[in-house]
Amino acid sequence: MRKHIPNHAKLVFKGTRHDVYQWEEEMFDGTKGIFEAVRRKDGVTIVAVVGDKIMVNSEEQPFIGKFLGLPAGEAEGEDSLQDAKRELLEETGYVSDDWEHWFTSEPKTSARLFFDNHFFIARDCRKVAEPRFDSGERMEVVLRTFDEFISMWDNPDFRNIELSPMLEAASFDASKKEELRRKIFG
Amino acid sequence: MRKHIPNHAKLVFKGTRHDVYQWEEEMFDGTKGIFEAVRRKDGVTIVAVVGDKIMVNSEEQPFIGKFLGLPAGEAEGEDSLQDAKRELLEETGYVSDDWEHWFTSEPKTSARLFFDNHFFIARDCRKVAEPRFDSGERMEVVLRTFDEFISMWDNPDFRNIELSPMLEAASFDASKKEELRRKIFG
Repeated sequence: MRKHIPNHAKLVFKGTRHDVYQWEEEMFDGTKGIFEAVRRKDGVTIVAVVGDKIMVNSEEQPFIGKFLGLPAGEAEGEDSLQDAKRELLEETGYVSDDWEHWFTSEPKTSARLFFDNHFFIARDCRKVAEPRFDSGERMEVVLRTFDEFISMWDNPDFRNIELSPMLEAASFDASKKEELRRKIFG
Repeated sequence: MRKHIPNHAKLVFKGTRHDVYQWEEEMFDGTKGIFEAVRRKDGVTIVAVVGDKIMVNSEEQPFIGKFLGLPAGEAEGEDSLQDAKRELLEETGYVSDDWEHWFTSEPKTSARLFFDNHFFIARDCRKVAEPRFDSGERMEVVLRTFDEFISMWDNPDFRNIELSPMLEAASFDASKKEELRRKIFG
């Protein structure tokens, strides 16, 4: 159902995080209508495995407030894996040699908002440095068991709602739980 | 976790559907950062009950393509119930004397996108006119049984994903199904 923003769309506003595009589209009566869509900078999100635990951090950001979240950030280049590695190291001080692209999610609440969030799994993470926060984040690294991780699905402070349906299914269905465990721990 | 766009935020772009705001926020190191958020025009969506059926229409829009959707539109005024009544009449030719505001959803994929979608239930709908489509929509009114309605939860063409978790729960849990049936049919 959803398509990409057409190539001939005009960039009518360039913001710090959001670009707005407009273009003409032929309507059903043959007239032209102005269509508008927003592209938000792509994101990366990391499911970081440390031993038999998964990192779900206690975070705080100006304006947003406190929340529970996976290591994440903006995708700044063409190579989202590089962005994920950089974010994990900067935010948490952890690195991994076993990365896998898991899936890329799109928002579904609007057919006119474009934002790709690239989810990665980083297994066997180890700490090699202290976190270096930028001025817009505070974070405490918290390692949680797999059961604690899947129980996040109905926690209103858990921010990664793209994962919630999967975590919910794993909470109620033993075979889906095993499938998710194998996916994450390899 | 989410807040409103601050009152002192500056409107930096006004589009046909999306307004972009920017404002200064104090960062954790005392410096100021520029924050940016998008407000999309509010929407109204109607669960329209006709006899023992629920309206889930076959629709088509330029750019968006074909989809299955509830009667819906933009909230143009302060009174979203009036907007809902207007959209139902214009799109489908149906009216109701038994309206209830059900809930208002916010998108959860971004803490910086503001869009309120007001869901209404309209019971005992009756047809009083022919639909009057604007040039940007084509629609066939389709009445579906309650069982067909809840089975929409995993239909990729069904657009009202705010409802999907409720429909999914009703598909697997008899007491939730009865609760939803009572809510919709009154």
